[in-house]
Amino acid sequence: MNELDLIRLLTQNLPTHPAVVVGPGDDCAVLDLGLPDHWLLFKTDAIVEDTHFTRDTPPEDVGHKALARPLSDIAAMAGTPTAALVTAALPATFDPRRVCAVYNGITRLAQRCHVAIAGGETTRTPDRILLSVSVLGTVPRRRCPLRSAAQPGDAIFVSGDLGGSLAGKHLRFEPRLSEARWLAEHFPIHAMIDLSDGIATDLPHVLDASHVGAELLKSAIPVSRAARTRARTRQSPKAALLAALTDGEDFELLFTLPPRHAVSLFDRWTRQFPGLRLSCIGKITAQPGLTLRDASGLQPLAAHGYVHFDKP
Amino acid sequence: MNELDLIRLLTQNLPTHPAVVVGPGDDCAVLDLGLPDHWLLFKTDAIVEDTHFTRDTPPEDVGHKALARPLSDIAAMAGTPTAALVTAALPATFDPRRVCAVYNGITRLAQRCHVAIAGGETTRTPDRILLSVSVLGTVPRRRCPLRSAAQPGDAIFVSGDLGGSLAGKHLRFEPRLSEARWLAEHFPIHAMIDLSDGIATDLPHVLDASHVGAELLKSAIPVSRAARTRARTRQSPKAALLAALTDGEDFELLFTLPPRHAVSLFDRWTRQFPGLRLSCIGKITAQPGLTLRDASGLQPLAAHGYVHFDKP
Repeated sequence: MNELDLIRLLTQNLPTHPAVVVGPGDDCAVLDLGLPDHWLLFKTDAIVEDTHFTRDTPPEDVGHKALARPLSDIAAMAGTPTAALVTAALPATFDPRRVCAVYNGITRLAQRCHVAIAGGETTRTPDRILLSVSVLGTVPRRRCPLRSAAQPGDAIFVSGDLGGSLAGKHLRFEPRLSEARWLAEHFPIHAMIDLSDGIATDLPHVLDASHVGAELLKSAIPVSRAARTRARTRQSPKAALLAALTDGEDFELLFTLPPRHAVSLFDRWTRQFPGLRLSCIGKITAQPGLTLRDASGLQPLAAHGYVHFDKP
Repeated sequence: MNELDLIRLLTQNLPTHPAVVVGPGDDCAVLDLGLPDHWLLFKTDAIVEDTHFTRDTPPEDVGHKALARPLSDIAAMAGTPTAALVTAALPATFDPRRVCAVYNGITRLAQRCHVAIAGGETTRTPDRILLSVSVLGTVPRRRCPLRSAAQPGDAIFVSGDLGGSLAGKHLRFEPRLSEARWLAEHFPIHAMIDLSDGIATDLPHVLDASHVGAELLKSAIPVSRAARTRARTRQSPKAALLAALTDGEDFELLFTLPPRHAVSLFDRWTRQFPGLRLSCIGKITAQPGLTLRDASGLQPLAAHGYVHFDKP
């Protein structure tokens, strides 16, 4: 049984509450606790040694990543984080200097994003370090772009460059909080998600939730320099484009918008975020399924990547 | 370096936020997000296989405990839980039936306490199961009994019976949510805490935060039947009273109240919660330190227990 099957099983018939606006299945849970203008966002995320980082990862980067991941989910809802709780499960042999350096990484990012570290705990684990971070945030009522809101005809955009994040970005990415808030304030964004597992895995979450399909344009995918270098130097067995479509942990934003806003969006984005590329990579279709268009026509895109790229 | 030293080190200079009413150091973080009548409570807690439960623990009990622990912290603030997020770190070899049974334990308690399971995640861990649960709740503004609010002269009360929870209660305890809310609604409770590590460890958290001391009456400590049985049958090396003072995971409420309310409290409590013992175990003193009074006089009570009991 894989993780998705397990989650599908576990999230059947979960108890709910009148305050829950959006439960399991989006980037964050959304709660209405009666704040006049805001909903609450609630998210948790864990990273584990030897899965998300190694013994050799600089500890500040470990802390940064532990907080940046759930903040990226708050960004995907166009929200503002308020407070975080940090659980550190530590082996009995932990090095206090290393643990303090991990917390420095958390603290530095929290300060930059104006998030309180409001508590948490340490617990013993016999083996590897695990960090679990929960974040509470707010979003203006009804201004929260859900995965389920994509509509046929929408243009699909991504921020930044994709692929090859193992070269370093997976430890040092900045959650796109201000970009996402700016987008939701100035444009009628339909759906939004953060790219944690790659377009080929994450875009289908939007398509399934919205009951639509998508057609991507191969030449429009913003392939990162890291993905190109890793492909050229054989650090990765994947072609650069395949890496851009399937590598995880880019933590860029993917969102959909009625196409009539595209020109204005590019124009204002370039002035607002001159250092960050924005790409229109395709469109939402009424026909379900995810396809990639290149010179030879349309090909289905599977979660593990474009079939053609998998062949030598 | 022990856990308390580490936490002291890690919680220095944590970033805060104007919304934070109470940060690290109480049972929950307290946040003011502008709800007209309520503050928010925010808490996270993790349990780890071979530390908090074993491979042989019934999986429903594992799930129950994972959620009941942070709910007990919400109770200690006299709050009402709204929603929880569950992180399950699982070895690749997990048994889906066992994981589903764990979630059944979580779900059953959540339903009984009207808490939504609003999301969460599963992640891989190479070794033992870890469950981390975050809870969001509410409490009427300024009606939240903090650890720092004990005052000299207050009477000290505990709910239930103490000690020997390893005999089973540590897996099946009911968080004292309705008892705590009832207390805060009907009486001017000063300080409150849930007993997770035993009176000898937890009461000093209240004393330190309130800059006071306490004198306990040996004959008033409500020793549980489990503690007596375990002492008599040598399942535990501790005398029953020592177990009641130092065993962890009772998850009963300890609170302080001006003594003029004691008679009325006993009277109304007995009618409201006829099945649950309430004991007045001592008083808060202006003089710092924690002491235990018996026929031979006053003895200091250390975190590991009453010095006399440690001798054979």
